Amino acid sequence: MSNINPLLTLDVVELRDRLASGAVRAVEYVEACLARIEEIEPQVQAWAWLDSDFAIAQARALDARRQSGAAIGPLHGLPVGLKDVIDTARIPTSNGTPLDEGRVPEEDAVLVARLKAAGAIIMGKTVSTELAFMHPSKTRNPHNPEHTPGGSSAGSAAAVAAAMVPLAVGTQTGGSVIRPASFCGVVGFKPSFGAIARTGVLPQSPSLDTIGVFANSINGAAMVAESLFGYDAGDPYTSPSPTPRLLDVAKSDPLVTPMFAFIRPPQFDELADEETVMAFREITSVLGDQCFEAPLPKAFDDAAALRAKINFAEMAKHYYSYEKRGRAQLSSEIVAAIDKGNDVTARDYLAALDWRGLFNAGLEEVFQRCDVIITPAATGQAPANLNTTGDAIFNGLWTFCGTPAITIPLLWSQNGMPMGVQLVGKIGNDARLLRTANWLKTYLSTQGDA
Amino acid sequence: MSNINPLLTLDVVELRDRLASGAVRAVEYVEACLARIEEIEPQVQAWAWLDSDFAIAQARALDARRQSGAAIGPLHGLPVGLKDVIDTARIPTSNGTPLDEGRVPEEDAVLVARLKAAGAIIMGKTVSTELAFMHPSKTRNPHNPEHTPGGSSAGSAAAVAAAMVPLAVGTQTGGSVIRPASFCGVVGFKPSFGAIARTGVLPQSPSLDTIGVFANSINGAAMVAESLFGYDAGDPYTSPSPTPRLLDVAKSDPLVTPMFAFIRPPQFDELADEETVMAFREITSVLGDQCFEAPLPKAFDDAAALRAKINFAEMAKHYYSYEKRGRAQLSSEIVAAIDKGNDVTARDYLAALDWRGLFNAGLEEVFQRCDVIITPAATGQAPANLNTTGDAIFNGLWTFCGTPAITIPLLWSQNGMPMGVQLVGKIGNDARLLRTANWLKTYLSTQGDA
Repeated sequence: MSNINPLLTLDVVELRDRLASGAVRAVEYVEACLARIEEIEPQVQAWAWLDSDFAIAQARALDARRQSGAAIGPLHGLPVGLKDVIDTARIPTSNGTPLDEGRVPEEDAVLVARLKAAGAIIMGKTVSTELAFMHPSKTRNPHNPEHTPGGSSAGSAAAVAAAMVPLAVGTQTGGSVIRPASFCGVVGFKPSFGAIARTGVLPQSPSLDTIGVFANSINGAAMVAESLFGYDAGDPYTSPSPTPRLLDVAKSDPLVTPMFAFIRPPQFDELADEETVMAFREITSVLGDQCFEAPLPKAFDDAAALRAKINFAEMAKHYYSYEKRGRAQLSSEIVAAIDKGNDVTARDYLAALDWRGLFNAGLEEVFQRCDVIITPAATGQAPANLNTTGDAIFNGLWTFCGTPAITIPLLWSQNGMPMGVQLVGKIGNDARLLRTANWLKTYLSTQGDA
Repeated sequence: MSNINPLLTLDVVELRDRLASGAVRAVEYVEACLARIEEIEPQVQAWAWLDSDFAIAQARALDARRQSGAAIGPLHGLPVGLKDVIDTARIPTSNGTPLDEGRVPEEDAVLVARLKAAGAIIMGKTVSTELAFMHPSKTRNPHNPEHTPGGSSAGSAAAVAAAMVPLAVGTQTGGSVIRPASFCGVVGFKPSFGAIARTGVLPQSPSLDTIGVFANSINGAAMVAESLFGYDAGDPYTSPSPTPRLLDVAKSDPLVTPMFAFIRPPQFDELADEETVMAFREITSVLGDQCFEAPLPKAFDDAAALRAKINFAEMAKHYYSYEKRGRAQLSSEIVAAIDKGNDVTARDYLAALDWRGLFNAGLEEVFQRCDVIITPAATGQAPANLNTTGDAIFNGLWTFCGTPAITIPLLWSQNGMPMGVQLVGKIGNDARLLRTANWLKTYLSTQGDA
């Protein structure tokens, strides 16, 4: 990114302020993004649909609005990439599968309507893996095209990482926000389950599907999430409670120095690579008395299998019509998951759902002693293998529990690939999680090497 | 009921007013109830647990409270019977099964706490069929002991019908409130799904389980339901919305003459007996222009099977431990249902749940043209057969849809057994349903024979 337009590397909150004041015009910024995309999209392949004229037209309208003195939204002029499983009115939304080629929704997803109302620019649709599952997409890792960007929100993570857009939205059912964000070296934030309505987003597993955001800073993630939070009658898991002031809290100082609980997730010893193990040894050591290790009870070893059971059973239901219409056009990964899902009985499925509450009760004991959990975002750097999207094993537990999670790009592998540090908060404590993430970033940067 | 204490046949709202004013003392009234119970309980067998001293002690405390000038609750001094699947702290709750013999909960169900807070007297536990399912209980129909009282809330319906208590609470998963109320000749009211929290009530099928009430008048049902409505964090189907003023609305006059849609539910032609068919022909004729017949779309023919699939699948999950502990002590009805439920796949179960929304969309077209639906509460009078609790076929659809339903004892069979007329409202329109029920009762009484 040596000769990059400096506008594109601005912290997105600073950028927002400049767009709001008119110091930067929306058209000027969008054109910079489009130039960047033109330059590196052939290598990264982050976009499923993009129309420069449409983006510029939105920017012109926003500039005119600001100049007219009309009120502007909190995301005024900021281009956002939307994972191609999020419905956009009159814009193709093909869910990463040829079975939905040419599908054009009539209505915006609720989150798209909220972005528009906040003054954001719908930049385009970012590449999703097939039906937001495991089969790799065409997208490459911006840090090295021989490495996977992760999945399933591959395009959203890569587009932000490549500075094509400052913000993007994705979804996580297993580890589809945190993992690609970690692999691509951007901030990925998966809020509490139920915080952002999924109405108009491809349902894969409604008990798990969670909207998440990508940004080039923690505050940026807080800012865009704040515009998306809130009740929607179409999503029974949202609730009509006040929206937290995520950005203000994220920018504020903690009242007391935060306490971190280091958790080795199940299978950490078998799967975490050497670099990850060493990095967390170092971070916990640098944190010193501000960090303790919290062993998880044995029961958590079953979490991955329970989560998969729920995921596959609900996928068998929600992808039933895809399988009926075109089993031959589905990847072996999807077909295998649907077949497994079809074998799950209602009783086992309902029993698996009960564990969400039990696991959260188990975590309560940890959260009574810490502000956030610190734990790896992935088993290591992005695999140098385009036939996989990497392992979501260190993400699924937190998706299942519904706890808010964020990954911050604090680590680098020896071969120059980014690696994330994942922080996990208690359900509903999204704002505190973001504030603590900022504290950690600052603390580690002042402590030198981490 | 010729030589009955006149207090026991007072409309319960009138009784409430007298208790509140001190014209009737709580002890005086409870003693009348206890005398009545002593007289006819050997024949009716409505009670699973009852302690006269405990009832009188509560009444004494309430009398003292009123005399001290302290504020009294809206159900001050009213004895209530609770179906024995509703947890009561330090009072046995055996769920109608020998497997829970001697089980004593530590906490009150949320609805019990609300009754106590409203000043009601916990009279005792009324007989439930085994685990609130189909196997008949010991309770007899107060109108004729050779007839079933219905089920599963057999004791609650019979206790109110026999004037042992003015109010009782039960549950309906298929037709367990409306059917026994119809068979026993009392008002049974099953509010909208989610209106009354189930926290602390035996879960059989949480997607269907609905709390309902029994009273000796429509206004009585409105009054006790109003005290029970409301949000509880322990029941995810309740929502923090304002509680409707059920009693005030029930007592008010409709702004315009109500319109009724007569619905022949699926299987009406095969299963409704001659008396029922004739009675509804007469009622709809008396209503004249205020009633039209609304044919249900063909899809509704599947509702009973879909409801059963959900019921049995969730029962297999929630009664799993009963089956493990004591399959041999379960009735053949329960075992068959659990076995069927164990065969339901998660996919089919989830697909069945979707039909709730589809059926309600179908009903919307009807509710745009009427105030309430009028339809039989049962296929006929209570069967003269103690080996069955009767057929819930005309109730399950409304339980599945979650629509509020009420049965009013407006009909009598040739052999002197009561039969109910069921009215069904749109979800959330509980107050209007109650008001329309009062209008219908008055209208038919002024039109002579119905």
